[in-house]
Amino acid sequence: MASCELLCVGTELLLGDILNTNARFLARELAGLGFTLHRQAVVGDNPTRLREDFLAAWERADFVFLTGGLGPTADDVTRETVCEALGLPLEERAELLESMRGFFRARGCDMPRSNARQACVPAGAVAFSGENKLGKPAGSYYFPNANGTAPGLAICVSGKCAVLLPGPPNEMEPMFLQTVRSFLSPWADGVIVSRMVRTMGIGESAMAELTADLLDVENPSVAPYAKTGESCLRVTARAKNANEAESLITPVAEEIRRRLAPYVYGMDVPNIETVLIHELSAHNKTVAAAESITGGGIAKRLTDCPGASRVLRGAVVAYCDDVKREQLGVHAKTLEEHTAVSEQTASEMARGARARFGTDFALASTGWADGENTPLHAYAAIDSEDGTYVRRIAFAGQNRLTNRLLTENAALFLLYQALNAHNSAHA
Amino acid sequence: MASCELLCVGTELLLGDILNTNARFLARELAGLGFTLHRQAVVGDNPTRLREDFLAAWERADFVFLTGGLGPTADDVTRETVCEALGLPLEERAELLESMRGFFRARGCDMPRSNARQACVPAGAVAFSGENKLGKPAGSYYFPNANGTAPGLAICVSGKCAVLLPGPPNEMEPMFLQTVRSFLSPWADGVIVSRMVRTMGIGESAMAELTADLLDVENPSVAPYAKTGESCLRVTARAKNANEAESLITPVAEEIRRRLAPYVYGMDVPNIETVLIHELSAHNKTVAAAESITGGGIAKRLTDCPGASRVLRGAVVAYCDDVKREQLGVHAKTLEEHTAVSEQTASEMARGARARFGTDFALASTGWADGENTPLHAYAAIDSEDGTYVRRIAFAGQNRLTNRLLTENAALFLLYQALNAHNSAHA
Repeated sequence: MASCELLCVGTELLLGDILNTNARFLARELAGLGFTLHRQAVVGDNPTRLREDFLAAWERADFVFLTGGLGPTADDVTRETVCEALGLPLEERAELLESMRGFFRARGCDMPRSNARQACVPAGAVAFSGENKLGKPAGSYYFPNANGTAPGLAICVSGKCAVLLPGPPNEMEPMFLQTVRSFLSPWADGVIVSRMVRTMGIGESAMAELTADLLDVENPSVAPYAKTGESCLRVTARAKNANEAESLITPVAEEIRRRLAPYVYGMDVPNIETVLIHELSAHNKTVAAAESITGGGIAKRLTDCPGASRVLRGAVVAYCDDVKREQLGVHAKTLEEHTAVSEQTASEMARGARARFGTDFALASTGWADGENTPLHAYAAIDSEDGTYVRRIAFAGQNRLTNRLLTENAALFLLYQALNAHNSAHA
Repeated sequence: MASCELLCVGTELLLGDILNTNARFLARELAGLGFTLHRQAVVGDNPTRLREDFLAAWERADFVFLTGGLGPTADDVTRETVCEALGLPLEERAELLESMRGFFRARGCDMPRSNARQACVPAGAVAFSGENKLGKPAGSYYFPNANGTAPGLAICVSGKCAVLLPGPPNEMEPMFLQTVRSFLSPWADGVIVSRMVRTMGIGESAMAELTADLLDVENPSVAPYAKTGESCLRVTARAKNANEAESLITPVAEEIRRRLAPYVYGMDVPNIETVLIHELSAHNKTVAAAESITGGGIAKRLTDCPGASRVLRGAVVAYCDDVKREQLGVHAKTLEEHTAVSEQTASEMARGARARFGTDFALASTGWADGENTPLHAYAAIDSEDGTYVRRIAFAGQNRLTNRLLTENAALFLLYQALNAHNSAHA
């Protein structure tokens, strides 16, 4: 099994300016390929220490992955330091300069001169962008960057390999998933496959109690995790190949889905909104939203998903009473007697949005995310031809962003439950 | 200045199961005390590798901080491994056993036998829980854990010090803030203070070119970095105390703000929306939004900020043509002649929202975030009594979420620029 180490380069990491999400992402991906990650380290933009740490890791492991330090400024030292440490000269490549110019042109500007350094690769490096039919190749390769200018690099020498990746996660993650992973596949030894069962509406402890016997098994292992407002169970199997791993996972995942049926909204889905857009689309249904406390968050999450334009017609963010009245038709009397944060107002907001946008479903939210109106709480509502339902959400603390997220989740889960009930009734 | 290294112990970190927030927290705290953190590393629950990495760090640095591995299970090896590496015997302490039993009793259960290991400390260790009047003490100390069972440890030998802290952030962070920081204060040699200048509308390279001479200075140092759609410059000064550090930083920060004036939106602010809510509120101005491509993201970001209800009256997410017509008054002819993704439609959306919500400013967005309508692009618009302005944003790639974020940024930056122009004109 290939042993590897990870070096994240960047003084901003050492100063604690940013969170190191790259380490986590790569750790998971490499585990999935069956690579054993023995160490992760962070080192600053310092060529001397970077060289030292790189060579120490190169000595110990088969693979050394590095993130960061591929940018255009003087602080960006990874490319030069690693190539110097391995005794490899760099050469500027016309095709990389050209594609970088194109990147800037597409954004309506010229390429600054300092970016030219990023078009340098180890002499003789070959472009890699597809399936790895080369086996375990010696030599150097570069990986195109679809979201930035610096290409990634793989430098294979004497049976070892250094892989240099960009620091910004939005450049590194797609590059890894689209090309680097395929490059690494000949070295992948056995697999570790994980499936994540996603639930809402049940707490982590209750979920663990219902699946206690499954949590005790070693392979596949079942581990609970909490995300804010959600509980997940990760089922992980180690096996010789993906098919064997799946055959270990499937019966356990099915059992979990059976026991937690009212709460499970999907498996290996990134979030509930992805499932909702898919379900709404498959059944030709439309949705709208009337948002107060969530301030656009419900519509934002739904429209984050490709294909949302087929199903979400629109939303109104009604952040004050008169907008609730004028744009959503909430009755002045309702606001007087029950105030904006009430079951009644939430219902009228949902009904108003459904009428206004002419959709099959409409969601609404209203509440107090922070401040002195304690105990803090909110209402999520859904309106459809099957009626109007409202759910009250109590907040444990004063975290504005968390409380808004919990309300978004409550509204989206109401939609999930309504879609399921609707589909069962009309099946 | 005390040099230090950080070792985070835990296989779950190597597997990417969790995000390493401890590293960021300690990096910032230590920087604030004037400690120079040269390396951070993560190592698994493996006594052999941990001993190796600990001794390597101990050789290089004055302080070695470790988190994790102080728990009660067989996987928890930090205490024993470090003490063995330093040749120090451990002894079980009655007072620690007693306080641990109390911890379990308060939770209505008995202490499991395995927790007894956590009551072991280096022989002769003394409790530390208050002000450090000892100066730079030799010997061993333990720090009480208000939120868990394992005490933290400080082991001072031959002018160096190993500090062992619990892994769970909710135990480690309070312990550090309440006792460890005070223990470290005699070694705190001056401070390191950073200020972050935030800009929009200028790329990282262009920004670096305009400040090239400033990037060359050693103290204060100026380092550029990119966030998605933004560029930042971090000004860091080392000095005897906070006042001296500020006096080093201020002239440089002012010079940066002067040179990058059209692009700087704030210093040490979490994001542009925080600045906008503050500015709008201070000038008693209101804003609304008409969102297509951004799907609620503009309203969401503005309402993420406390105090938003004073300034944001509402928004319309108009995700299809007829909603743009019916809810925002966009002319059918405009949609026919120019389509939904055009400067003209963006203008009408902004004007329609401003009229509908009766606000001082209104923002609008429309565009293609992904798909085959290439080249992908969007328009952000702003309407106010000073007129309607539209900005075209070209997208470099097909990343839906990134492209929506860039459009949100463009709209919010338009508002920032309009507010500044408005305030200068009406000052």
